[in-house]
Amino acid sequence: MKFHDLTRELQRSSDSKIVLVVADGLGGLPLQPGGKTELETARTPNLDQLAAEGTLGLSTPVLPGITPGSGPGHLGLFGYDPLEYNIGRGVLEALGIDFELGPEDVAIRGNFCSLDEAGNISDRRAGRISSEIGAKLAAKLDQITIPGVEVFVKPVKEYRLVIVFRGPGLGGDLQDTDPQRTGVPPLEPTAKAPGSEKTVEVARQFLEQAREVLKGDFPANFLTLRGVAKKPEIPTYHEVYGLRAAAIAVYPMYRGLARLVSMDVLDAGQTLEDQCQRLAAAWNDYDFFFLHFKYTDSTGEDGNFDAKVKRIEELDAAMPSIKALNPDVLIVTGDHSTPSKMRSHSWHPVPTLLRAETCRFDHCTSFGESSCLQGGLGQFPAKYLMSLALAHAGRLEKYGA
Amino acid sequence: MKFHDLTRELQRSSDSKIVLVVADGLGGLPLQPGGKTELETARTPNLDQLAAEGTLGLSTPVLPGITPGSGPGHLGLFGYDPLEYNIGRGVLEALGIDFELGPEDVAIRGNFCSLDEAGNISDRRAGRISSEIGAKLAAKLDQITIPGVEVFVKPVKEYRLVIVFRGPGLGGDLQDTDPQRTGVPPLEPTAKAPGSEKTVEVARQFLEQAREVLKGDFPANFLTLRGVAKKPEIPTYHEVYGLRAAAIAVYPMYRGLARLVSMDVLDAGQTLEDQCQRLAAAWNDYDFFFLHFKYTDSTGEDGNFDAKVKRIEELDAAMPSIKALNPDVLIVTGDHSTPSKMRSHSWHPVPTLLRAETCRFDHCTSFGESSCLQGGLGQFPAKYLMSLALAHAGRLEKYGA
Repeated sequence: MKFHDLTRELQRSSDSKIVLVVADGLGGLPLQPGGKTELETARTPNLDQLAAEGTLGLSTPVLPGITPGSGPGHLGLFGYDPLEYNIGRGVLEALGIDFELGPEDVAIRGNFCSLDEAGNISDRRAGRISSEIGAKLAAKLDQITIPGVEVFVKPVKEYRLVIVFRGPGLGGDLQDTDPQRTGVPPLEPTAKAPGSEKTVEVARQFLEQAREVLKGDFPANFLTLRGVAKKPEIPTYHEVYGLRAAAIAVYPMYRGLARLVSMDVLDAGQTLEDQCQRLAAAWNDYDFFFLHFKYTDSTGEDGNFDAKVKRIEELDAAMPSIKALNPDVLIVTGDHSTPSKMRSHSWHPVPTLLRAETCRFDHCTSFGESSCLQGGLGQFPAKYLMSLALAHAGRLEKYGA
Repeated sequence: MKFHDLTRELQRSSDSKIVLVVADGLGGLPLQPGGKTELETARTPNLDQLAAEGTLGLSTPVLPGITPGSGPGHLGLFGYDPLEYNIGRGVLEALGIDFELGPEDVAIRGNFCSLDEAGNISDRRAGRISSEIGAKLAAKLDQITIPGVEVFVKPVKEYRLVIVFRGPGLGGDLQDTDPQRTGVPPLEPTAKAPGSEKTVEVARQFLEQAREVLKGDFPANFLTLRGVAKKPEIPTYHEVYGLRAAAIAVYPMYRGLARLVSMDVLDAGQTLEDQCQRLAAAWNDYDFFFLHFKYTDSTGEDGNFDAKVKRIEELDAAMPSIKALNPDVLIVTGDHSTPSKMRSHSWHPVPTLLRAETCRFDHCTSFGESSCLQGGLGQFPAKYLMSLALAHAGRLEKYGA
């Protein structure tokens, strides 16, 4: 029996509440052998108190040694095996701008770029044009028509945009047209697998018209296409867990991921404080809340150990207001590690804290990687965090007689 | 997505170096409850230093409670699921004498045996004849011809030999003809599954001729056939990991295992010192080195606790010369446990040490089973050692966006 068949079968209704706080890229590394990680360095009295009351562990997002992107990292936390469900970048970007993707849609991330007179790329990000200019140019491209296909072009931010082709028979297996360097022309649309020939032809026509539309708009006088993908078929949160779920995320991609599993996406505001207020306001309307905090990842990617420590302390300061709502299950974890030492996502297991009335005491009294290594959850695949959450929330029946 | 599809897709080129030191049968047991294992008894300052710098764990070669032979033990360490890839004993023996097995070959381990006048086996090992005599007799058998099939007979050591039948339509599912006891005749070749009928007939003809050829060669006047098998289809190390890999192993079987995954097999010399010199000499030619040390297993199988301790100390003494090469990832582990208390392979999880710049500190400062139980790698399936090694070597891209 597959994991979700099990959770489908064992669902039990309850008025319990689950809060999943995801501190993006939470896990870290010490700068020196034998030293402390960012999380261990941070002063986190509230998280430490939760650790003492709850159970700790280390989650493996995909497999040992495999570094996840944000998509697989979050799918794992949501209980969907990231090796079974593959989400293309274009799909993520489209979901992140509230674009409602349908089953006939092919989603593409576009980057405005600069072409020189010879037609070679001179800047892969079009001089990082403002979001305002990006939006205007996207609106021009949105006028492009191609027979037999609907075309949508929407701005994301600065030089980034989303292109969606909608129509029958469009496959999603195309190579990027971004050559990943300057001084050469963009690549022609090419299929990676059979079944995407029509999409190649549509992309070709789109780019031909786009070149004409944008010819006077240097430095954004063309665009490249990346992460071409179709939306995977993925069962909803409500179906597999019986949960009415809401996402409170400031950044588009994480809202998009939540929407992919059919969570309701709430207005998150801009700050963690905003998010906590939104959580309190929506408390009676949902069973499950996914609250996403981005800055533990971005400071890690910047290689800024001290800034990551500060962001963790900011997260810690938000805990009392969440705890005040009295959730039956409160989880604090990350979607992957982002050690500032590595300035990138990494494969290292992710510190995880689960606090509920039904926790077995594991003698851990602080929230950190070393402490989690000794914790009662042990090292476990991230996807089982959901069955643990449901269990502690009294939302799963016994399996078998 | 399967493990090797993932490593294939995520390969990143790098000039990093990985060294995998396999101390065969490394794991042990204390002689008395509460006592120390062989590894914990040994004085291992160099391994302890590596433990302090790196991360420890316990690997499970196949599944909890399952004791692996050398084949599954090593396949697991090489990242190939030992339950998916099954290597027959005949194949191992053939690979171990540098016999190049093709897809039409059926490989068989032969044992010279003694038959009495009634045709019953009086000695299953033919009085342990010398290797010299064994080689002469194998050369005689190598002259046997069977229509439609090529026959190869090669000596291994003493009473052991390898027989290979080459030809179309030969299946590899035959029962051993060794009855495992004396006073009875050898068994007739018998198929275990459909598709091996032709091999049964070839084996029957071969044995009929062999009886004639060997009739004057008592105590080696016949032979039994064991471990009949075909080579499994197994993707190469280079294909699944992007690694140019070399094996430095003194014993034939381990060279054979390395060859099975298409590692280059280097001349290992006879001693661990020879092996380390060979490692240094080949340093620039490969990305990955598998160095095999046999004697931790053989002393364990002898039930000689003290001798195993000494062999572990010998291994420890080799560490500085390996470390001096500055490998990006240095792993020390075993293919299984061989507790001298049990005088055999066992299922106990295997102490594992991984040392790299990107290790998270796990507070372990000595290399031993108890210490490994507290280690940051936790208890993990042996096959994931390869993804961990690749990750720490900077040889894997992120999975997903």
